Amino acid sequence: MARDILIRNARPLGGAPVDLVIRDGCFGTAGGALPTQEIDAAGHIALPGLVEAHTHLDKTLIGMDWFENRVGPTRNHRILADRKAKRELGIDARRQSARQILQTLPFGVLAIRSHVDVDTEIGIANIEGVLETREALRDLVDVQVVAFPQSGMLPREGTLDLMDAAMRAGADIVGGIDPATIDRDPVRHLDAIFALADRHGKPIDIHLHELGELGAFCLELMIERTRALSMQGRVMVSHAYCLGMLEPSRQQGLIEALAAERIAVMTVGSPAAPALPLCLMRQCGLTVASGSDGIQNTWEPWGNGDMLERAKYLAQRNGMTNDADLAETARICTFGGAEAMGLAGYGLSDGDAGDLVLVPARTLAEAVALTPQKRTVIRRGRILGRDGVLVEDLFADAKTHA
Amino acid sequence: MARDILIRNARPLGGAPVDLVIRDGCFGTAGGALPTQEIDAAGHIALPGLVEAHTHLDKTLIGMDWFENRVGPTRNHRILADRKAKRELGIDARRQSARQILQTLPFGVLAIRSHVDVDTEIGIANIEGVLETREALRDLVDVQVVAFPQSGMLPREGTLDLMDAAMRAGADIVGGIDPATIDRDPVRHLDAIFALADRHGKPIDIHLHELGELGAFCLELMIERTRALSMQGRVMVSHAYCLGMLEPSRQQGLIEALAAERIAVMTVGSPAAPALPLCLMRQCGLTVASGSDGIQNTWEPWGNGDMLERAKYLAQRNGMTNDADLAETARICTFGGAEAMGLAGYGLSDGDAGDLVLVPARTLAEAVALTPQKRTVIRRGRILGRDGVLVEDLFADAKTHA
Repeated sequence: MARDILIRNARPLGGAPVDLVIRDGCFGTAGGALPTQEIDAAGHIALPGLVEAHTHLDKTLIGMDWFENRVGPTRNHRILADRKAKRELGIDARRQSARQILQTLPFGVLAIRSHVDVDTEIGIANIEGVLETREALRDLVDVQVVAFPQSGMLPREGTLDLMDAAMRAGADIVGGIDPATIDRDPVRHLDAIFALADRHGKPIDIHLHELGELGAFCLELMIERTRALSMQGRVMVSHAYCLGMLEPSRQQGLIEALAAERIAVMTVGSPAAPALPLCLMRQCGLTVASGSDGIQNTWEPWGNGDMLERAKYLAQRNGMTNDADLAETARICTFGGAEAMGLAGYGLSDGDAGDLVLVPARTLAEAVALTPQKRTVIRRGRILGRDGVLVEDLFADAKTHA
Repeated sequence: MARDILIRNARPLGGAPVDLVIRDGCFGTAGGALPTQEIDAAGHIALPGLVEAHTHLDKTLIGMDWFENRVGPTRNHRILADRKAKRELGIDARRQSARQILQTLPFGVLAIRSHVDVDTEIGIANIEGVLETREALRDLVDVQVVAFPQSGMLPREGTLDLMDAAMRAGADIVGGIDPATIDRDPVRHLDAIFALADRHGKPIDIHLHELGELGAFCLELMIERTRALSMQGRVMVSHAYCLGMLEPSRQQGLIEALAAERIAVMTVGSPAAPALPLCLMRQCGLTVASGSDGIQNTWEPWGNGDMLERAKYLAQRNGMTNDADLAETARICTFGGAEAMGLAGYGLSDGDAGDLVLVPARTLAEAVALTPQKRTVIRRGRILGRDGVLVEDLFADAKTHA
């Protein structure tokens, strides 16, 4: 596998054109002769790999029969429909996770954090399936697996043991969900999750849809526990809609407290949920990541997993139209996600992993606004896709798995 | 030009497969031998042409240099930046309107209502430019031109005379803008607009961004004037954010009053603006249309003009994920727009104009959720585009104009 390549005439983050060198899978300009493999980036914008910080690889229906959505309006309706679909549609987590990864690879998505369901019906089968895909496609993409108690944890006896089993099976991160409205006991839910994470020496990622002051209270509980267990930089809160619903002083105080414990926040910029105050979050030094959430599943019928399009959604939800703001949302979907996920060697500097995506656009803002599809994707010095299409031999290999 | 065609195996609105016949440019199953020109729709979904009920053809920057957006956050900042850009960038309304039309044609957008700026700097030059494009491309698309006082009307002396001149030059509709926050005198602004429309015997389309009760008050003024001048079915309100900001009983009362005067409402489903209550609006029998608003201009850098993607935005903004709701947003972007714009002979029934778009999808909901690009577009029996690409000879003709 070619791991050395010279990329001529690329514009990192939309800046001035440079030649980039990848040697033995990492960026590095120093050293001997230039690699013999070379491509002309034609002035396209170079970004490090796009980062998908929040999705559900095990539940996408890509490539399956159309699911007619007649699900009721509440989160509980959706959780029930989701579990029923897993039972009745035969959603194979191994196959479906591979399908989503292959769909988002030509966009340049090279790192993915996936929440994966753990419950008393399927046990840890979905964890095992996604881990199998991760192993099969490890040369193509980095995958982090969150053991996720989608159906609730404490009220469904046995789930916590399954979460423990998931961690022993190889999951990377302990997940949690709505400590109050789903698990009905915020303190015990969070205590259980933090204890599990502490025991396994693993990070935490909690779905928090709780609204207003209830969500703010749950955030306070997380902040206290992060501090008590010295888990700074190892906790992510996903969604955190409440941050968009508080009065200004309360909002700012909470964001500063999250930043002080280096707790990251993931937002998808959903058009139907409260908008998070991205500018304030940036000013306060909060680490912000983004994700597609589930794509094409029983929850939502849409989604393509393109994290450059996600940057556009973030800007649109926040009414941001300035070039500088669009560059910031692009940063959230690259460096922000990498920081939140704790990716090592992420970036375009010497020594960083040789991952990049070339986007045909004049400015970074244009890349976000128009999300051009004809991208070139390079992973550890190997060309995976050109002009938006995966290279042939890669596709033949990967198709077998998907 | 071929105007007779047999379309085999198409699924109108996602229903059962049928053969559709277009004779002499109109749908019609009765009559003699089948047309000799025939295509296999391969089970694709047939929709009548997509309807763009609100855009700004004269101001798109498609194909021009990248505009670095450093514009301030208020509507007035944007209006000033917009007028400056028209002065300094040489935005040719004739050329730019053609570019946008050609960009949206392969999506199947076959009817467009465009607001076109009228102000004391450019006079009616943009109106003349868009009218010229309309004439040149009349075989491809129906265009309605709204004389639009973007910079304000009463406070800028001479604008009302220019509006009158625009109507005499061939504009189809009298436009208006924020009677209170921009024109600073809701009664005199609306009186002037309704008088102009009455004098020319033309419909009205008013941009209304006014929020909350101020917006509601302006809507009441419009309802009173529509009734007094018997303009039922000839007034559209664009945006009407206030409808998403009122308490339930006030909201419903106002929607019922609009429906009673057959005043249509256009919403783009903007992620950063209040969401309109689409379900309630449907229940009350209100005519609802949608549009892209400006695409790729100094206001907003994004937008492709695809009205099927717009249906997705509407659903996403309203948190609608059921198949039935997605079918409804598709209806808004087709029949809803056609009704609001007063298009004659719109639909897939015998006698209707032979316009349609074939979308490769299993269900109408899938068409909205995934917005497949490889569409076939037929206009008055003539194939304009196949697999998402305009046919060659068409492109050669039209390129000359754009």
